[in-house]
Amino acid sequence: MEIVGELINASRKAIRPLIENQDADGIIDVARKQVEGGADYIDVNAGVFVKKEPEYLRWLVETVQSALDVPCCIDSPSYEAIEEALKAHKGMPMINSISLEKDRYANVMPLVEAAECKVVALCMDDKGMPETKDQRMDIADRLINELVQKGVKPDNIYVDPLVQPIGTDDRYGVEFLDTIEALKREFPETHHMCGLSNISFDMPKRKFVNRVFMIMAIARGLDGAILNPTDTQMMASIITAETLMGRDKYCENYLNAFRQGIVDP
Amino acid sequence: MEIVGELINASRKAIRPLIENQDADGIIDVARKQVEGGADYIDVNAGVFVKKEPEYLRWLVETVQSALDVPCCIDSPSYEAIEEALKAHKGMPMINSISLEKDRYANVMPLVEAAECKVVALCMDDKGMPETKDQRMDIADRLINELVQKGVKPDNIYVDPLVQPIGTDDRYGVEFLDTIEALKREFPETHHMCGLSNISFDMPKRKFVNRVFMIMAIARGLDGAILNPTDTQMMASIITAETLMGRDKYCENYLNAFRQGIVDP
Repeated sequence: MEIVGELINASRKAIRPLIENQDADGIIDVARKQVEGGADYIDVNAGVFVKKEPEYLRWLVETVQSALDVPCCIDSPSYEAIEEALKAHKGMPMINSISLEKDRYANVMPLVEAAECKVVALCMDDKGMPETKDQRMDIADRLINELVQKGVKPDNIYVDPLVQPIGTDDRYGVEFLDTIEALKREFPETHHMCGLSNISFDMPKRKFVNRVFMIMAIARGLDGAILNPTDTQMMASIITAETLMGRDKYCENYLNAFRQGIVDP
Repeated sequence: MEIVGELINASRKAIRPLIENQDADGIIDVARKQVEGGADYIDVNAGVFVKKEPEYLRWLVETVQSALDVPCCIDSPSYEAIEEALKAHKGMPMINSISLEKDRYANVMPLVEAAECKVVALCMDDKGMPETKDQRMDIADRLINELVQKGVKPDNIYVDPLVQPIGTDDRYGVEFLDTIEALKREFPETHHMCGLSNISFDMPKRKFVNRVFMIMAIARGLDGAILNPTDTQMMASIITAETLMGRDKYCENYLNAFRQGIVDP
């Protein structure tokens, strides 16, 4: 399971001032806690600063990598911002994200073609958010084929089928889960990378619903997620589900998590 | 999801004296709490009383059904005990269980043939517990075919693939989950009925592991389980997983569980 830590996003109240004040120690602290929690990538997003986004996004990459040996997930729909951030990035970055929306595709594809990178492929086109598995698979099929034709290795493609809230339609959970399974069957070399928390929008006890949904998605084949890795209840659920999927030799990760006191405290 | 309440088992310390003292009120109380918790069947087991098992098993069925309009899951490998209990049972019972073990098969099959009943079909033969999905599917295939040839409807067959502990072999979780999915694909009209708690044998935080495993099994198609329905954390996990599988119109069951205060209290 590959984890992208989602916390360094300028739309969060705690993060925006750290960026405005160029508080490197503050940013490094948030990044370090996510790596300690289990993040494999650190998402960086400065989208709220329209004009200064390229400068700030580059600074975030430089700041995180000045202290930590971890790749970043460069989170923007803007050509200029991603291009600037890529200049500073060490190692193989993840670009978040491309889609079949006309503008985003035109903006991001040249960068994906030019850089040796991983890329999050959103199941979205200009018709809006897909609702069913079939709609998602149709978009995924076209987008994966475009990416492969441009020279991107399937192993570097991370499909995000886009979660929609069950409070809106009680089929949205199962349509997503069915998509996860179908993606692994149809495109076995590609991966997943998505946020799941939208599933519980407008429901009570959101964090519980999110944990249950994460466990179910792992059971259906999910191999990557964008989340808050300092949420120890979520991380314990993921570790336990991975153990039960047979991906934890001698249950060592589970037993370590237990000894750290994060399993069902 | 069909739930069999497992608590009325003479091997449990709290239950044995209730049976020995013919304490009908005590038994009814345990049965009622399980029905209130969500049980669709009440398991009755008097296996520890070798000679008196038939008499006691019949008494348990009579006692439970004297107060509650609920079918029983008659839990014994003994011809005499099941036969006696069936005489008293009202409505359609579930017989727990038949297998391909020679003695059990010979004992239980005549009763399954004679009665209009549901039956738990254990994936077990005289070679012992199966370890892989393929071994389980081989036994299930033979046993389901035997049952259907004897006139049992597939809809009345509840396959138990038998859970083995991940503490013994870290593949045992995923082999079980793969079996659940394969059974639904190969024998779509049959159901599942199994206890899952063996998965966590000898592990710390067993109840947590059991809940995570239950959620994963539901995501892979599990439609029945034998468990303690008064365990509200387990029941909340099941209700939430069912909601996320699209089997809860307008999320009503989830919202009811939330209002009862059993969701992540």
